[in-house]
Amino acid sequence: MLYSHLYTKISKTHRDDFSINAQLLGQAGFIDQVMAGAYTFLPLGLRVLNKIESIIRDKINSIGAEVLMPAVVPIELWERTGRLETVDVLGQVTPANAATKLKNDSRYVISPTHEEVVTPLAQKFINSYKDLPCAYYQIQTKFRNEPRAKSGLLRCREFRMKDLYSFHVSEEDLKAYYETTKDVYWSIYEALGIKEDTCIVKASGGDFTKDYSHEFQIRVETGEDTVYRNITTGECYNKEVMPSDSGENNDYETFKACEIGNIFPLNTKFSQAFGLTYKDVNGEDKPVYMGCYGIGSSRIMGAMVEKYHDKYGIIWPESVAPYKINLVGLDLKDEVVKTQAYAVYELLLKRYPNEVLFDDRIEARAGEKFADADLIGCPIRVVVSKRTGEKVEVKNRNAKDTTLLTIEEFLNR
Amino acid sequence: MLYSHLYTKISKTHRDDFSINAQLLGQAGFIDQVMAGAYTFLPLGLRVLNKIESIIRDKINSIGAEVLMPAVVPIELWERTGRLETVDVLGQVTPANAATKLKNDSRYVISPTHEEVVTPLAQKFINSYKDLPCAYYQIQTKFRNEPRAKSGLLRCREFRMKDLYSFHVSEEDLKAYYETTKDVYWSIYEALGIKEDTCIVKASGGDFTKDYSHEFQIRVETGEDTVYRNITTGECYNKEVMPSDSGENNDYETFKACEIGNIFPLNTKFSQAFGLTYKDVNGEDKPVYMGCYGIGSSRIMGAMVEKYHDKYGIIWPESVAPYKINLVGLDLKDEVVKTQAYAVYELLLKRYPNEVLFDDRIEARAGEKFADADLIGCPIRVVVSKRTGEKVEVKNRNAKDTTLLTIEEFLNR
Repeated sequence: MLYSHLYTKISKTHRDDFSINAQLLGQAGFIDQVMAGAYTFLPLGLRVLNKIESIIRDKINSIGAEVLMPAVVPIELWERTGRLETVDVLGQVTPANAATKLKNDSRYVISPTHEEVVTPLAQKFINSYKDLPCAYYQIQTKFRNEPRAKSGLLRCREFRMKDLYSFHVSEEDLKAYYETTKDVYWSIYEALGIKEDTCIVKASGGDFTKDYSHEFQIRVETGEDTVYRNITTGECYNKEVMPSDSGENNDYETFKACEIGNIFPLNTKFSQAFGLTYKDVNGEDKPVYMGCYGIGSSRIMGAMVEKYHDKYGIIWPESVAPYKINLVGLDLKDEVVKTQAYAVYELLLKRYPNEVLFDDRIEARAGEKFADADLIGCPIRVVVSKRTGEKVEVKNRNAKDTTLLTIEEFLNR
Repeated sequence: MLYSHLYTKISKTHRDDFSINAQLLGQAGFIDQVMAGAYTFLPLGLRVLNKIESIIRDKINSIGAEVLMPAVVPIELWERTGRLETVDVLGQVTPANAATKLKNDSRYVISPTHEEVVTPLAQKFINSYKDLPCAYYQIQTKFRNEPRAKSGLLRCREFRMKDLYSFHVSEEDLKAYYETTKDVYWSIYEALGIKEDTCIVKASGGDFTKDYSHEFQIRVETGEDTVYRNITTGECYNKEVMPSDSGENNDYETFKACEIGNIFPLNTKFSQAFGLTYKDVNGEDKPVYMGCYGIGSSRIMGAMVEKYHDKYGIIWPESVAPYKINLVGLDLKDEVVKTQAYAVYELLLKRYPNEVLFDDRIEARAGEKFADADLIGCPIRVVVSKRTGEKVEVKNRNAKDTTLLTIEEFLNR
């Protein structure tokens, strides 16, 4: 990709005092704020988001079937479960202009979560125990009328999310699947390059179950959650469920973290609301057990920036970097250098298809281009200039040293 | 993909009297209706939608940069352009429950189109003539509070769309890009396999321009639009702009069609509303010229079914079929046949990665499986059964004859 074809710019003057991720992602041209808690993903940002979601999709495909449910749904579905008055971030959709409103007073809900849609969906395909277990998931834009939208991509009104819903003959089968989901989640965080910094945290099961639910929390100093880790057992708890007894094993360390996934046994709460049952081997109707499992893909993007940056900019994990290679062309007014730079670009593209960002700007000075490459944060910077001649200068984003190599030497590394 | 892992079922009893596409897509398990004009894309349907959108993305990348704008945006943006009271399908988002509403009476708009978002976005990156032309596009779920939601995927409240917006120094430059877009659209319809059945139709430019806008219409007997084609010149017009003079060349044929794309010169309507200007070579502020270009990806899916089906089911163009091959396993209770069927499945997958749907249902009878394969409409049906032995029986969806081949013969075809 030619930098000039991104149609965005680095903004040196961009200011966001409230969070590091909004500051760096905004300055580097990954996102653009439309209102508090709502951002346009610009070409670089959309690449990162797509890579995160591809990794999630690839792993979740092993335990569920991908669907795409509507965001806007009949309000009656939410009346049915009684959540219309309890979920305070719920938005309703009505006609925007007065004339239409007079003719049409229908109300819809814009969904922050999809139990109210997936339960009646599953009901159409579940008759007997032979149809279970089954699981559907989607990767979708969600809306929460968030009163405290802040912290860039960490707490948004509109955000991206993977939500998975599973259906089972019994609580035991739900529990077994629930444990499998934990394994799959760990494999996702590993593929994203953030497993080491992530921990699983016991949280309240809410009204649905006496069991815990679980959060996956990434350690980030700027996170808005506090994790309590039992030093003896290594078990982590959120504040709500932290054991308060004063027994022997009650020594805890605390750290700040950001929630990037949660898994939740729903048991029969939603199947009861919708009358979702199955026929067991004896032909008797039994309630279906359910679980739900979320991962916030856009929030992961924000959390990564909070965690992986230095004073010069973002340091993307290779798994999700917008491009693996940032090719910086200097002295491009010189026809010889220009020809060499484009030749190197073509060679790099052959080896790394669709993974090379070529800073082809002619007016920008060397210092500016180096600063911008650091800010954008691709793993490898390759420079072609009058000085490098027929070689290229290579530097990892994380390193200080540069190496002068022939292009063949670089490609054969 | 194993059929049993789709977690959907063929529904013989599914009825939709209003449209062929809703009937066939619903029956075959591609979509599920949540309310009038809003559908869940089930695994098979999502595969088709993704393939259509991949083809669109691949082509549009040559003329624009992909972004993803928020769906829910501040109502003030729409007040600014005066469209709040004129676009009657516009939905507003407000808190859904009474308690929240008392504390928070903010209003947002859920966007049916994005001129109000992309114009201020472009404004951040356009300073001088050197920044032009530029173009942004997105592929996104859109919402229209459609009063006449009907005809399955042809007229939805919630639907998928590619929307592209371009920015130019002059009307001439806009016109040149506009012509390029026509070429790119033709290449998309060609890749989708529907170019032959699609025509370009002159339509009104609305309030923005005295020029025509253009619609791309696919000939479908069940389409809700009428196209007027001048028999002498071959030019097509919609009703609104059909020449009414009684001159020599006024001989028209009419046909029914479905609009699957439109392109629109916006000129300076939106740049004036937002004060979007650029500095020309003399440093003078000039208005930016704009165009917008839409393709309805989910509507294309519906139109394809209206057009490409027979009394047995859907006949997908190969470009967008959910799977290239539908492998049908019969007599799967027989261990020898079962082993053979899974071996064939693995061989097919090697040659057609991720493009084989294996009907692994054990209970379903042969007649049912053949009927279901016809209904789903993959281009090639491959059967393994007791009768085929070590060979496979191959049939194209479009053909009547079957051929008995060894798996090697099939793979080497």
